[in-house]
Amino acid sequence: MDKLILPPEEIRSLGRAAVEQIAAYYDTLDERPVLIPTTSRALRDLLDEPLPQNGMDFDTLLRILDEVIARYSRHSAHPRFFGYISSPGTPVTSVGAMLAAALNINVTCWRSGPAATDLEHVTIDWMKQILGYPAQAGGLLVSGGSMANFAALAAARSAKATGNVVRDGVAAAGRMCAYVSSAGHFSISKAAGMLGIGEANVRSVPTNAQMQIDLTALERLVQQDLAAGYRPFCLVANAGTTATGAFDPIGELAEFARRHQLWLHVDAAYGGFAALAPAMRPLFAHIAEADSVALDPHKWLYLPVGCGCVLYRDPATAHAAFSHAADYTRAIGLERDEAFAFWDYGPELSRPFRALDLWLLVKYVGAARLAQAVEQNLDCARYFGELVEASGDCELLAPVGLSIFCFRYAPRGYTGDLNALNERILVKLQRAGSSYLSNAMVHGKFALRGCVLNYRTTRRDMEVLLEDVRRAYLDLT
Amino acid sequence: MDKLILPPEEIRSLGRAAVEQIAAYYDTLDERPVLIPTTSRALRDLLDEPLPQNGMDFDTLLRILDEVIARYSRHSAHPRFFGYISSPGTPVTSVGAMLAAALNINVTCWRSGPAATDLEHVTIDWMKQILGYPAQAGGLLVSGGSMANFAALAAARSAKATGNVVRDGVAAAGRMCAYVSSAGHFSISKAAGMLGIGEANVRSVPTNAQMQIDLTALERLVQQDLAAGYRPFCLVANAGTTATGAFDPIGELAEFARRHQLWLHVDAAYGGFAALAPAMRPLFAHIAEADSVALDPHKWLYLPVGCGCVLYRDPATAHAAFSHAADYTRAIGLERDEAFAFWDYGPELSRPFRALDLWLLVKYVGAARLAQAVEQNLDCARYFGELVEASGDCELLAPVGLSIFCFRYAPRGYTGDLNALNERILVKLQRAGSSYLSNAMVHGKFALRGCVLNYRTTRRDMEVLLEDVRRAYLDLT
Repeated sequence: MDKLILPPEEIRSLGRAAVEQIAAYYDTLDERPVLIPTTSRALRDLLDEPLPQNGMDFDTLLRILDEVIARYSRHSAHPRFFGYISSPGTPVTSVGAMLAAALNINVTCWRSGPAATDLEHVTIDWMKQILGYPAQAGGLLVSGGSMANFAALAAARSAKATGNVVRDGVAAAGRMCAYVSSAGHFSISKAAGMLGIGEANVRSVPTNAQMQIDLTALERLVQQDLAAGYRPFCLVANAGTTATGAFDPIGELAEFARRHQLWLHVDAAYGGFAALAPAMRPLFAHIAEADSVALDPHKWLYLPVGCGCVLYRDPATAHAAFSHAADYTRAIGLERDEAFAFWDYGPELSRPFRALDLWLLVKYVGAARLAQAVEQNLDCARYFGELVEASGDCELLAPVGLSIFCFRYAPRGYTGDLNALNERILVKLQRAGSSYLSNAMVHGKFALRGCVLNYRTTRRDMEVLLEDVRRAYLDLT
Repeated sequence: MDKLILPPEEIRSLGRAAVEQIAAYYDTLDERPVLIPTTSRALRDLLDEPLPQNGMDFDTLLRILDEVIARYSRHSAHPRFFGYISSPGTPVTSVGAMLAAALNINVTCWRSGPAATDLEHVTIDWMKQILGYPAQAGGLLVSGGSMANFAALAAARSAKATGNVVRDGVAAAGRMCAYVSSAGHFSISKAAGMLGIGEANVRSVPTNAQMQIDLTALERLVQQDLAAGYRPFCLVANAGTTATGAFDPIGELAEFARRHQLWLHVDAAYGGFAALAPAMRPLFAHIAEADSVALDPHKWLYLPVGCGCVLYRDPATAHAAFSHAADYTRAIGLERDEAFAFWDYGPELSRPFRALDLWLLVKYVGAARLAQAVEQNLDCARYFGELVEASGDCELLAPVGLSIFCFRYAPRGYTGDLNALNERILVKLQRAGSSYLSNAMVHGKFALRGCVLNYRTTRRDMEVLLEDVRRAYLDLT
């Protein structure tokens, strides 16, 4: 049998065995530890081998996948995985990933994938509808939030630089600088580093007690930069910070950006899909004034990792930043909509068919069910905040922001270093495997931090989390 | 039924229906037209709708997928799809994509995906073994060749700039410039644009009759730049150009780069896996002297789109270009190998589990079968070159380079514009649906261009292609 050109019955056999495995995986998620501690050395001992010349049977590979790879993975879909900002994925999008890989369309442009390109346009329109972003805006799917922020900042750089910065480089454009709150995501300064602007030219603006950007401090920084001969070009608003879920006041920042002719980019990688919840809608009242928005369907739209999105209010700004013509990319015999190329609007040329899963999930489940799941996540985080406040041995370190909570264990009468204690509790909790939190620094305090982003998570899981934190403390002593 | 939390029997039902569909897709590939002509308007009429609030049944969605999305796609896996540089994917990697999406590991770092991270290291080691690249080199998987070239140029920029260009920006680093042959891929200059160096500061070096970089011209350009106060920092060698498959002399370029203290990057996105064929091995004799290499498992390793790879001879150079520390990325309670983070070596933070498919394909099929497929592709391209030379009505416009052929239809006694004629033949051929070629300009002549990159393609397909070109001409007149 030729393992590259498999007969249909063999494809069926492989596929069904894999479907059994994923059905069993989803079915046993709740019972698994979130994580089984191991070491890189132990894993390399299980996986290392020189390039295999001969193939092996699929069943053995599935077994390795289950017994090594799945076993020693941190389960994003576990109901008490609260680390970072991580989507569980869904069964229907797992199946969708197989369909997309079989079609294997390289969604570089309309010519390369006619239906895939139009389907991506349709899903981008849905993203705009969810946010309340203008219908004439453009956008595309990228691999994640970091690349979305990068693409948006590239568009900002071109739009606000003197001269043609893509052609001539940044050196000719003067000393450009950007602004984001100290709670902003590191991908903003990383993008500035990659774009040749320099990480040091992203100003870290202080925040207020709600961890939102301090407008007075922002004004002062901009005036200092202008006086020093810098060229302020971009202001980034956080629509849900990574550490605490804080939401900057977009309307005020839009007004500020207009006054100073800054590009306003909204980093809504985490918080964007909170707009599905009617109660959160007011936070997005001024989103249409943003020049660009980053949002991550692979976060709060529950898609598997690999699907970020950038929206540009004026698509021509992205075109100025990214378009490039070459003989082999010229669209021959096509014009207008059929000559559309995604590479004119983002950093990639080859692009997987990311829109298929997005379309499939929304069409199969419906936006109403997704909105309900978002509301349930918000409720679970709020409920955990209440549990902490009523606890007597824990304290909230920041207001619950969207579905993120930051707290610490602070037993009555404890006189030691609470930062060190909570760091030890975190490690103990993670290794115990029942719940998983990550960490954040909040006003200089080490916080246990969680984000509810899983439609499987219930109020009961929040209660178990608190018990798990207490157990981790007891196990330390 | 909750469509987000499906019971196992429903996951099985969805999965099996999807497996049926992909088995049928692969089975009918040969009989499908490569492409069915349509318009964006027609597709939008079929696909456009406002955000759906309510879900629909999976079978209907599968039907739309088959009747609209698959129907109006260009089939990368069709045995006579010769356009661009496009992999067919394989059945086992389609199934692998489902498994990866179900596990849904965000492969940001070891902590986030212990087994996935080590598995990626194992597959990177395999890539190095295939190429003959040093064992101590580092690397990671990215979304494609454009991002691999971008990452490599970012490392080059940091390594060769005066001062800390990531922190302080490019403006302080002087006028940097890079060199690539006029046959280089547009992602090189696009990367320079994004990195703030400027597309105009990528010198397009003339090529010789074999479309390889002209070393005398290169030397002249470097001297001109030095005299004009530029700072040459990077030389890009093509290991298989997009237009003709030309392979630059890596050894000579390495020597040149050392002499001028340039970073040597090898763009092997297309040609890298030619190293699997013993006859092509000599082309890679000096690859170990390159500072970085871009190669695309989603091209000639037959993986579905979304898997590129960048290798760095000295991983510390990439670390200098990309590493970034933040509270929420600090590895608490972990050290050494367990503190490893991919974001320190590339532009992304979130990263899908790209290594799974790579591992699965090599383990299932074996490198020997993959090498055989590469040799078959090389043979098909050479055979087509022979057919053209013996044809009487076609002419080769460049030597067959790896698995790429460039030719044109030039009927005896034709006195019209051969460029215009072949452009019309190309459109006619593409719309007819039996074979698909793309195009290239070769020494000012419009070429019909094809690349054999499919293990399904046989010598008989090459004969059919020639018949299809002749038929397209006849249909014009």
